[in-house]
Amino acid sequence: MGKVVSSASTSLDGFVAYPDNDPGPLFDWYEAGDVEIVNHGDLPPFHLTSESADYWTGWVGEIGCLVVGRLLFDITDGWKGEHPIGVPFVVVTHEPPTDWKWGSTGNGHFVTDGIEAAIARAKEIAGDKSVGVAAGTIAGQALAAGLLDEVAIDLVPVVLGKGHPYFADIAPADVKLGDPTLIIRSSRVTHLRFPVVK
Amino acid sequence: MGKVVSSASTSLDGFVAYPDNDPGPLFDWYEAGDVEIVNHGDLPPFHLTSESADYWTGWVGEIGCLVVGRLLFDITDGWKGEHPIGVPFVVVTHEPPTDWKWGSTGNGHFVTDGIEAAIARAKEIAGDKSVGVAAGTIAGQALAAGLLDEVAIDLVPVVLGKGHPYFADIAPADVKLGDPTLIIRSSRVTHLRFPVVK
Repeated sequence: MGKVVSSASTSLDGFVAYPDNDPGPLFDWYEAGDVEIVNHGDLPPFHLTSESADYWTGWVGEIGCLVVGRLLFDITDGWKGEHPIGVPFVVVTHEPPTDWKWGSTGNGHFVTDGIEAAIARAKEIAGDKSVGVAAGTIAGQALAAGLLDEVAIDLVPVVLGKGHPYFADIAPADVKLGDPTLIIRSSRVTHLRFPVVK
Repeated sequence: MGKVVSSASTSLDGFVAYPDNDPGPLFDWYEAGDVEIVNHGDLPPFHLTSESADYWTGWVGEIGCLVVGRLLFDITDGWKGEHPIGVPFVVVTHEPPTDWKWGSTGNGHFVTDGIEAAIARAKEIAGDKSVGVAAGTIAGQALAAGLLDEVAIDLVPVVLGKGHPYFADIAPADVKLGDPTLIIRSSRVTHLRFPVVK
């Protein structure tokens, strides 16, 4: 049985994008080396350091399904039915799109009854593999509801000042995690994974 | 010549305290081990892990003067004139207190013309040692003005949801830092230091 793991490139002040959704320098590490990583769908290859490439390959190999919010789905047009890491995705939405052009790929699933149902559906699809949860409102809801097993942070040495937080819309709380189980130094990023204490 | 370094215990979402200024679990690592660290003034001893104790001792030995905001000064009553790490401090304030009882210690200095002047004054006092800058508005102003050489983060594995940010009141910007020069794993904290790219 896989885990449920959120993951995002995050600034030192905890943001995953500028207020206008631009990730700015948070994705610099995707081009910080010379190991080519070929993506599925439309996205051009990345070029990672060997440290980041090892981490990335392990991450992609572990994930069997993603859970994403409607905003990310809309921004990317649902990756035209093929997510860069090549796995199916479950979209949490109040109202599934009726005119999405790439529905026939079978890779996009829509769940209308909340984060818990979405993660349950993603677990079914992932089978023995893990479920990846996107940052933002989705990650905030999943963390607050105790649905995450791990939090992965690609910590980027930059201060954005303002933006979209990794864990959005959670009430003031102190959700304790364990000490990092993994710390990988790379260029323009440090990869960290924290277990959620349950 | 010393450096100018900000430092704070920080949640994974970039906060240094709850909205009511309570640090909550951010200071758990001060009691996570059995190495006793004796503080100056009123503060009882800490009990750190050996990893954190080594880091802490190095940090305290490096600092010759601190720069703090008026809020922290008021909350602590200026540490009754004796900061826990035993060094003088410069308070950035529009209006110095006229009735501060501990002025005769000579450890508290008041600068009314902004962060740049306060850091300049602290450098004079620190001599060859470094200047420590407290988190919050002061750190935000210092970072935005290009006055910091390094950012130290005691990264605590907890998500607070809301609170006071490490770098407050800075305009949306991308202040780039270098990859961490130091990463120390401990219990309830990971100590990180990032150079500011100039």
